[in-house]
Amino acid sequence: MITSTDNNKIKDVCRLVAKKKERNNRCLFVAEGEKQVFEAPKDRIESIFCTEVFAATHPDIATDGITEIVSDRVFAKMSDTDTPQGVMAVVKMCETKSEEIYETDSRIFRPSVRQDQGTGPDTSQYSAEAVSEDHTEKEEQPLIVFLEDIRDPGNLGTIVRSAEAAGAAGIVMSEGTVDIYNPKTVRSTMGSIYRVPFIYAEDFYGELENAKKRGLQIFAAHLDSSHSYYESDFTKACGILIGNEASGLSPRATEFADECLVIPMCGRVESLNAAMAATVIMFEARRQRMFR
Amino acid sequence: MITSTDNNKIKDVCRLVAKKKERNNRCLFVAEGEKQVFEAPKDRIESIFCTEVFAATHPDIATDGITEIVSDRVFAKMSDTDTPQGVMAVVKMCETKSEEIYETDSRIFRPSVRQDQGTGPDTSQYSAEAVSEDHTEKEEQPLIVFLEDIRDPGNLGTIVRSAEAAGAAGIVMSEGTVDIYNPKTVRSTMGSIYRVPFIYAEDFYGELENAKKRGLQIFAAHLDSSHSYYESDFTKACGILIGNEASGLSPRATEFADECLVIPMCGRVESLNAAMAATVIMFEARRQRMFR
Repeated sequence: MITSTDNNKIKDVCRLVAKKKERNNRCLFVAEGEKQVFEAPKDRIESIFCTEVFAATHPDIATDGITEIVSDRVFAKMSDTDTPQGVMAVVKMCETKSEEIYETDSRIFRPSVRQDQGTGPDTSQYSAEAVSEDHTEKEEQPLIVFLEDIRDPGNLGTIVRSAEAAGAAGIVMSEGTVDIYNPKTVRSTMGSIYRVPFIYAEDFYGELENAKKRGLQIFAAHLDSSHSYYESDFTKACGILIGNEASGLSPRATEFADECLVIPMCGRVESLNAAMAATVIMFEARRQRMFR
Repeated sequence: MITSTDNNKIKDVCRLVAKKKERNNRCLFVAEGEKQVFEAPKDRIESIFCTEVFAATHPDIATDGITEIVSDRVFAKMSDTDTPQGVMAVVKMCETKSEEIYETDSRIFRPSVRQDQGTGPDTSQYSAEAVSEDHTEKEEQPLIVFLEDIRDPGNLGTIVRSAEAAGAAGIVMSEGTVDIYNPKTVRSTMGSIYRVPFIYAEDFYGELENAKKRGLQIFAAHLDSSHSYYESDFTKACGILIGNEASGLSPRATEFADECLVIPMCGRVESLNAAMAATVIMFEARRQRMFR
């Protein structure tokens, strides 16, 4: 058991947690929490660190040769959270090429119909069972999310999670977008980071142009639009373009939009949280695609 | 200028930031950030604290007799954020009675149609102008959000913000729900905390029963349902019931549901973030109500 925070392995992890540069240099990041560790593809896990309590309740974890037991104090030092779950993994980054995003077969993202359990009151708890994939569905047009300078790690993580759930084929981010390997972002994705293809585009505007050339219709969420999002047709190949939390989309990005749309809002709300706006639009696209 | 963190006023604020009990005893909470301070109703503001830099760039703020200038070091000590904006207010809590939630005239929450600016590419920035209220709309059936044991402060704040935007008449929370006056929650509401009526129900299940007696149809977000949320009719008076992030709705709360619904999900996502799920359903209700 590692009991000293001066241990080199521990210092290594702390640097990966704290520094984007360190992560990029070593092509490694830290995934903290049970779900994030257990959903990581096995061949991408470099090492696992967990507390004695965690190891005792998860006997499998300590037998695979890459797991180190650390004291609670050491784990607290490594952890990015206030209430650590007692497990984290060092995971290899996985590069996606922009081509792969456009060529992902979206069929694998289509939801399958769950077993009918009736629509009345149901007293069972939330099920931990994943919705199974259904490869028999007909091919679906790609839906790609374009993010310009999203800055909040939690927002980015939530968008990745919602994007997988809504059946997006991938995410294209501007270089000004927060690091997807930020520990908080990784946690917020709840495992979707391992499954949703994403790229940081060196030339974000070039990527938008590329998408248009490939036939994607670009919908930009823009508060100055008067066109409601549910009036748009999302059933064709399309991109959804979401801007920065504070300043919205840049004029330059907005120029690539085939259609600007707004989520009509009541009260005195100026805008929705960026992750909410992205999610509402993605699920409207999903809703429309269910009825094709 | 206050330069010592030992100053009694500063210690007072720090206690309000840190402790729910202190907030409840004194019926006061702390709203940090420019938007949260400037949107607070004037008659509810007890005192304002800001840095010299903030006062210099906002000359009005220091002239009203309730504003204290504090040093950057003192402000950093009081602040709940890593990158403080340099302003916070101590604000009086505002009690809502459960009756008021049901009797709120939902008309004031209806969105007005914005001036048509065309639906094509638009190069203007996000507008800071609030959507104006439109009291000429016909009366709308209430939409009330019921939250059982939401634990994450950011999720709760985001739900409050989305609820105002979606035109909800109010929010009823179980006592196990995180404190809405938690500094992070207050920030995440982006000012909606001052406008959306809410209550913590001592008897949450009794409140659900009360809502049903008043004719509200209760829709419960439940992963075991096979009924898609967009197949439900949200145009009548209704309640949307959302459960805890980890364990979902309790069987007892689920018993009050007239209809259980699910957001169909692709990929291997087990569930959406609770705030996302609430927002997607609320905006589907809004969408349906726009077409009444």
